[in-house]
Amino acid sequence: MILVNGEYKAHVEISDRGFQYGDGLFETIAVNNGQAVFLDRHLARLERGCRRLNIPFPGIELLSLEAKTLYQDSNKAVLKLIVTRGPGGRGYRQPDIIQPTRVLSLHPFPSFPDSSLGTFKCAHEEQGIAVRFCNTRLGLNPALAGIKHLNRLEQVLARAEWGDPDIQEGIMLDMAENVIEGTMSNLFYVKNDILYTASLELAGVAGVMRGIIMALSAEHALPVIEHSFMKEELLSADEVFISNSLIGIWPINKIGNTHFSVGLKTRQIQTWLHQFKNNN
Amino acid sequence: MILVNGEYKAHVEISDRGFQYGDGLFETIAVNNGQAVFLDRHLARLERGCRRLNIPFPGIELLSLEAKTLYQDSNKAVLKLIVTRGPGGRGYRQPDIIQPTRVLSLHPFPSFPDSSLGTFKCAHEEQGIAVRFCNTRLGLNPALAGIKHLNRLEQVLARAEWGDPDIQEGIMLDMAENVIEGTMSNLFYVKNDILYTASLELAGVAGVMRGIIMALSAEHALPVIEHSFMKEELLSADEVFISNSLIGIWPINKIGNTHFSVGLKTRQIQTWLHQFKNNN
Repeated sequence: MILVNGEYKAHVEISDRGFQYGDGLFETIAVNNGQAVFLDRHLARLERGCRRLNIPFPGIELLSLEAKTLYQDSNKAVLKLIVTRGPGGRGYRQPDIIQPTRVLSLHPFPSFPDSSLGTFKCAHEEQGIAVRFCNTRLGLNPALAGIKHLNRLEQVLARAEWGDPDIQEGIMLDMAENVIEGTMSNLFYVKNDILYTASLELAGVAGVMRGIIMALSAEHALPVIEHSFMKEELLSADEVFISNSLIGIWPINKIGNTHFSVGLKTRQIQTWLHQFKNNN
Repeated sequence: MILVNGEYKAHVEISDRGFQYGDGLFETIAVNNGQAVFLDRHLARLERGCRRLNIPFPGIELLSLEAKTLYQDSNKAVLKLIVTRGPGGRGYRQPDIIQPTRVLSLHPFPSFPDSSLGTFKCAHEEQGIAVRFCNTRLGLNPALAGIKHLNRLEQVLARAEWGDPDIQEGIMLDMAENVIEGTMSNLFYVKNDILYTASLELAGVAGVMRGIIMALSAEHALPVIEHSFMKEELLSADEVFISNSLIGIWPINKIGNTHFSVGLKTRQIQTWLHQFKNNN
């Protein structure tokens, strides 16, 4: 099911600048029991992204309404929102009057292995996952850092580096060898009871789930530090986990050949997140 | 006129990875008197780009044939070729079997002011143009540098920096403050009878016209050096010009407030290019 500017159709004009230049933004949202989880936060981020790229934001009411027609009867699904700068002529110059294109689509929720424990949604959330370092680097660019734009060739190339189904995620470094994030997730680590994540001034996507985790940790007096760090620092961590809007929090039990235990702090943050989801 | 996988239509599937992630490549080709200028070189670059991104190349014969049905009756036009990784599911992971999408479209040739001299096609080619430095920086990424891929938000943001119709192009620097290229062109300068252009190991597009200019200069024993250089070096040049497949060579007569004369070497290279075009 796809809605393009309010109409059910499955295609977009060739002249759309989303297709021509990746000139747009997107959001990936979990749907659970007929609700789009943290929809307000996703729309707020989309609005911030539109402001950064100078694309007129289609509006919270309109997007919420159109989204609801797609997800309201779904028990479990993924809602994707795309907003582009809309149709344009050949050439990078944007049209004088920008008429953004909005594309809302509903997708099957990925199938993750079940957990044997009722408190966890899937085995990855419970037991953790194995990840690898990617060779593909994230370029450095403050104009694009942080926002979830449609220029995603770096992630495409990074994700193409491995096919092993036992590796759930790849960790990406930037050109300066700083560890930034996963191909589809943000990355956190715990060391000496302090929570760390990469600063995203020059590369990376500031995930909605990342924002929630940082806010929850701050509320619970767990210190959170955004900074620049390298592989060695990550590999010497006490606990490591990734996050995104679909998976929530997955502990990492292995990076390459380095093993990690699923730690107490990770469990604590998972609990806070479950409580927060239940209260929202 | 647009051909999508050999059919006349004006749209592409939402699921196309070109739209979802900018996962593809493009070429912009001048059409002159029913001929696509340097088509073989453009197709060769497209094939190299496909190899870099691991997209199956649709083939020179097929693309040439489809292109010809579009351009053969045109006196003056722009032919654009796009090749994407084709349809895919949600997520960065590419499908096991990649079925690339090819989009060929014909566009009006841009209207440039006429030249009063018969040897030049337009006034910009004869008298030169005024350009500015852009604030938007090019990110550094060896995996994407050189190829003409569809992730073009940096160029979109740079081109949006000015509206003054007397400024014909913006010059872009990379994150390390090296001068790289124009938003839609490559950049050359002459100093002490040596021709220089930016090395494109970490950023930029290796233009077809850039390649021709470098080959012609080498043939005529004009030394060409690809290297890293900064604003100050460019501003102290004897001659500066830009190039692309539509404009050929345009001298620069002004960068910001710094004036340049249209120099002898630029005129010489323009002459070589005219001769080369006439012989091809």
